[in-house]
Amino acid sequence: MYELGVVYRHILRADRAAADGLAALGTATVHEAQGRVGLLQPSMRPVYPGAQVSGTAVTVLLQPGDNWMLHVVAEQIQPGDIVVAAVTSACTDGYFGDLLATSFQARGARALVIDAGVRDVKTLQDMGFAVWSKAISAKGCIKATLGSVNIPVVCAGQLVQPGDVIVADDDGVVCVPAARAVQVLEAAQKRERLETEKRARLASGVLGLDMYQMREPLAQAGLHYID
Amino acid sequence: MYELGVVYRHILRADRAAADGLAALGTATVHEAQGRVGLLQPSMRPVYPGAQVSGTAVTVLLQPGDNWMLHVVAEQIQPGDIVVAAVTSACTDGYFGDLLATSFQARGARALVIDAGVRDVKTLQDMGFAVWSKAISAKGCIKATLGSVNIPVVCAGQLVQPGDVIVADDDGVVCVPAARAVQVLEAAQKRERLETEKRARLASGVLGLDMYQMREPLAQAGLHYID
Amino acid sequence: MYELGVVYRHILRADRAAADGLAALGTATVHEAQGRVGLLQPSMRPVYPGAQVSGTAVTVLLQPGDNWMLHVVAEQIQPGDIVVAAVTSACTDGYFGDLLATSFQARGARALVIDAGVRDVKTLQDMGFAVWSKAISAKGCIKATLGSVNIPVVCAGQLVQPGDVIVADDDGVVCVPAARAVQVLEAAQKRERLETEKRARLASGVLGLDMYQMREPLAQAGLHYID
Amino acid sequence: MYELGVVYRHILRADRAAADGLAALGTATVHEAQGRVGLLQPSMRPVYPGAQVSGTAVTVLLQPGDNWMLHVVAEQIQPGDIVVAAVTSACTDGYFGDLLATSFQARGARALVIDAGVRDVKTLQDMGFAVWSKAISAKGCIKATLGSVNIPVVCAGQLVQPGDVIVADDDGVVCVPAARAVQVLEAAQKRERLETEKRARLASGVLGLDMYQMREPLAQAGLHYID
Amino acid sequence: MYELGVVYRHILRADRAAADGLAALGTATVHEAQGRVGLLQPSMRPVYPGAQVSGTAVTVLLQPGDNWMLHVVAEQIQPGDIVVAAVTSACTDGYFGDLLATSFQARGARALVIDAGVRDVKTLQDMGFAVWSKAISAKGCIKATLGSVNIPVVCAGQLVQPGDVIVADDDGVVCVPAARAVQVLEAAQKRERLETEKRARLASGVLGLDMYQMREPLAQAGLHYID
Amino acid sequence: MYELGVVYRHILRADRAAADGLAALGTATVHEAQGRVGLLQPSMRPVYPGAQVSGTAVTVLLQPGDNWMLHVVAEQIQPGDIVVAAVTSACTDGYFGDLLATSFQARGARALVIDAGVRDVKTLQDMGFAVWSKAISAKGCIKATLGSVNIPVVCAGQLVQPGDVIVADDDGVVCVPAARAVQVLEAAQKRERLETEKRARLASGVLGLDMYQMREPLAQAGLHYID
Repeated sequence: MYELGVVYRHILRADRAAADGLAALGTATVHEAQGRVGLLQPSMRPVYPGAQVSGTAVTVLLQPGDNWMLHVVAEQIQPGDIVVAAVTSACTDGYFGDLLATSFQARGARALVIDAGVRDVKTLQDMGFAVWSKAISAKGCIKATLGSVNIPVVCAGQLVQPGDVIVADDDGVVCVPAARAVQVLEAAQKRERLETEKRARLASGVLGLDMYQMREPLAQAGLHYID
Repeated sequence: MYELGVVYRHILRADRAAADGLAALGTATVHEAQGRVGLLQPSMRPVYPGAQVSGTAVTVLLQPGDNWMLHVVAEQIQPGDIVVAAVTSACTDGYFGDLLATSFQARGARALVIDAGVRDVKTLQDMGFAVWSKAISAKGCIKATLGSVNIPVVCAGQLVQPGDVIVADDDGVVCVPAARAVQVLEAAQKRERLETEKRARLASGVLGLDMYQMREPLAQAGLHYID
Repeated sequence: MYELGVVYRHILRADRAAADGLAALGTATVHEAQGRVGLLQPSMRPVYPGAQVSGTAVTVLLQPGDNWMLHVVAEQIQPGDIVVAAVTSACTDGYFGDLLATSFQARGARALVIDAGVRDVKTLQDMGFAVWSKAISAKGCIKATLGSVNIPVVCAGQLVQPGDVIVADDDGVVCVPAARAVQVLEAAQKRERLETEKRARLASGVLGLDMYQMREPLAQAGLHYID
Repeated sequence: MYELGVVYRHILRADRAAADGLAALGTATVHEAQGRVGLLQPSMRPVYPGAQVSGTAVTVLLQPGDNWMLHVVAEQIQPGDIVVAAVTSACTDGYFGDLLATSFQARGARALVIDAGVRDVKTLQDMGFAVWSKAISAKGCIKATLGSVNIPVVCAGQLVQPGDVIVADDDGVVCVPAARAVQVLEAAQKRERLETEKRARLASGVLGLDMYQMREPLAQAGLHYID
Repeated sequence: MYELGVVYRHILRADRAAADGLAALGTATVHEAQGRVGLLQPSMRPVYPGAQVSGTAVTVLLQPGDNWMLHVVAEQIQPGDIVVAAVTSACTDGYFGDLLATSFQARGARALVIDAGVRDVKTLQDMGFAVWSKAISAKGCIKATLGSVNIPVVCAGQLVQPGDVIVADDDGVVCVPAARAVQVLEAAQKRERLETEKRARLASGVLGLDMYQMREPLAQAGLHYID
Repeated sequence: MYELGVVYRHILRADRAAADGLAALGTATVHEAQGRVGLLQPSMRPVYPGAQVSGTAVTVLLQPGDNWMLHVVAEQIQPGDIVVAAVTSACTDGYFGDLLATSFQARGARALVIDAGVRDVKTLQDMGFAVWSKAISAKGCIKATLGSVNIPVVCAGQLVQPGDVIVADDDGVVCVPAARAVQVLEAAQKRERLETEKRARLASGVLGLDMYQMREPLAQAGLHYID
């Protein structure tokens, strides 16, 4: 349950090297590496293709049609952060555009993940400021009601704590708890090495049925072949 | 309430210079400049990225699964027009493809905005004919039931009168009443100049909190900071 | 009604030349040419723009959140096939990524059409492996429950029989029954020739109203013009 | 395009007898009787089954998450009115509950039609205050931003002018322009009489194929029977 | 792929006693008894609560916004049939109301299952004519384009063959192939007897964990308890 | 981020009297009384109308299409509990029916709140076992993959901790943190008393405009009246 009207200035950010290093692994690999948890709903889509980032979460809770708190959160951004924005009820309005992106980028933010709408998407792409959102809408917002900054938020169905690592690419967005970032980075790197080997074997024509030794469990589950 | 089976040949188009000039400002700025009204629902998306147009609305009302009236509206197009198509009930069928686009383009139309589906999207992009729609579907239409041309229509939740200005880009589509086009153009140009200044200040690190003098109203609303 | 736990090894594939030749016509033309039937719902979208393929369907039925059968179907792929995957209840999980794509491509598959989610979309584009899906999601799958391979499946509302021809491009996906493939190819080629002529006439300014002789039926239906 | 911050005190209400009389005919018959136009989208559903009303529209435009103008509109209600509420962008919040219903009912309102959410639905049913909405949500609203009262609004895709007649039942909601209310009432009553006769014939086993003389046009369209 | 413009007069209906007897078991039990296949998508909802029916399927394929073929299918109804209606593309219009229901009922139909909208729902309930649909809408239909009767159709994602048994209640709709109806009836009756016993044991406080001997497989899967 | 494969046996339940007492206040009042936070998304609907409950949350995390953990959570239920079930990815399958309801009821559970589907809804109503869900589906589940019991879960967008109070009625579902239950009960009771007074005044014809002294702030915001 959300605490309203409060800004937490000091948060414990995840290990910087881990937070930076996870970008290279990508959302799908990181999600697998930490045990298939932490994924935001697939309604979160990049506003332009090709961006791949990671960083530490600064969180903000917004009210419907009201982006006042995005100005408040800007001050709490540190270089390497990704802003994660939740809304108290479903809204597709355009909370964020080129002006706020300029400000966020000036503060060192790498991206915005927002369970609502954004606008000025062509400019965002020109600026190289990455955004994942559930909608694109030109409708602007008022500035009338308080939310909060750096409280735990539920964004697209996923609990995000301030300081957690966010990894985002064309496959979506995943949250890695700050305390697990180093461990997940190692697991993800290991997984990627294994996948490189597997990919080579599959490319050579080996079947997953054989590589993963699935034939026996499939037969035991009752699979039968008909010629 | 719609009048069916009628084509209005003569409509009062908005001032041409204003109708042409609004494209450069873009949907979000125009929407703000006219007081945050006139936006079509964000379900209206470009079928390919990057198009940015404005023009005078020629309207058409269609029946579900029936694109007969798109041939009727073609004759009413004048250079600089944008066709705005509404449907009497929700339908995602492909009402419009490369043949109609060829015809519309030959008549001087700049774009189509349709609260339904379209097809041949790759060809549309090759032709440079811009379309905003709520769906892409290869399913063609019959030609059996009358709608109307150049009546006021509700397209994606927005009332559009024939002759109004339509502005559309990657952020969506906005309608400017014909009578206000000149005034909105001026307001939008002014707004853009102001935004350029603001962008520069924000890029230099000034916070919106200070630039917009939000700190006091936030405090009065009860915002508190915790270290 | 689905038969579960079975793999049909031998299916009757459509005529190879027809199955290969239909790609050039594209989804919309093929759909029209076979009488406006066979289209999959427009929820099926390409994961990256620009791919245009055709091939013979190898079908697979999957369980929610479970991609075990994608490994089983891999073995049944022959060069020129397109895998068509249905799910027993709605699911957006990422059933398919770069590893399976490598395996499918090594077997000669040209594409995947899946009524669920996929991941690693940037890599899929780099590999040139075409996918149509209803979602993109990084969430992986378990391997626990049997479906079937090469049974008739309903994918995105369309019945697909193993061996049918699948045609897919930016407009969506259409299924051509194996027995009709040659005939549909001819009809589609004929249609395309006619469309080329029509396009030229429309480009010259001839109206569809005249080209299709619509003025009289429109008047009979009651259309009236107001000056 | 909406005019914001204005309340029109004097509106021209439709003929009272017609506005009252249309309830008995019901939404489907009225919609047919006026030529299949005027229907709100089927997303508008009664919050409890069985209510059937008609009345004169008093309109209100609301902002997302903000129900301030519902208090403003209350003062403009006259006995026999139905409040029609549109929102400037999609929102499911609970704009209306038992307190506002008490006030509306005290003013003589018969119902609310709102393209958003409401709450206290059990109490609304106990009070016998009819509501059609697109959502039910306990989330309350703020009072911060102006909309307007008694301007033309687009509610669930339909343009509603103040003073128009609204007819609503379990089939949905239809709008009859004030100027056409008397004529539509007569047409609807005539239609109902005809339908009573038709119903009796159909109940006796006569087929619609024969009663409507469809066999010949079906054959001409190409329908063939296979034994 | 659909054959258009044809009516099959003679279909092989499932065993009558089985088709009648399955109603008592209900959708969920029948679905389980035939191996968890055959269910229509949960978008199919009863238009009023409490109906529970079974019968033999007479199928009809409709075009968007066009209910002409519902008059054609009426003639093919025999006592004990349930009409199953599919549409060639998604549409929520009201294809069916009290007049058609009167006709269907006079012919002996027990219910309609339609992947589209219906109207006159209060009258349908008064008549006791059961309907499952995906929408309720007062919008009527035209009669202009042919579909087909008694061809295999895909309705709400499920292939239904003419003559199959349809079972429907508040849980949704399931299709039982004609050839399996007797066998599925027996399996469902057996399942119900077993469930009655299980229900008694669970009511007495026995846990499913013990009754189904799940503790060991759960432990093997790695479940651990923390006090 | 979820911990998988674990059951917490001991949780701190909210004050019993408060947990029991909140039912009488209802979802909307409780939501307001605790500051407009804690509401689950309005997709959570009662499977039959009229139920109104409160109780202490026992939580369970489920996998898509897999209800194994519902048997595990049954053992952890104590009288007065409400089971709150989240799923790792969106699924509408029928996770819960009359057998599990019998077991839950035997253990003393008052209700189930599940972000997925349920079945046997007519029997659930006959049993008086209350359920809020996002879907109704007859499709059963497998038992193959572990989730967890009594971990914090995100259900319909809301974080629910084991032991929190759940209040649910026809308006939806709200979560009250265990530590705040007593205080929220008092606030809600106070609010209800005030609402009773307000309701009487509004019923007598007093306007909210006057009762809440809105006329001045509305005028200051710029509202103007036109006669």
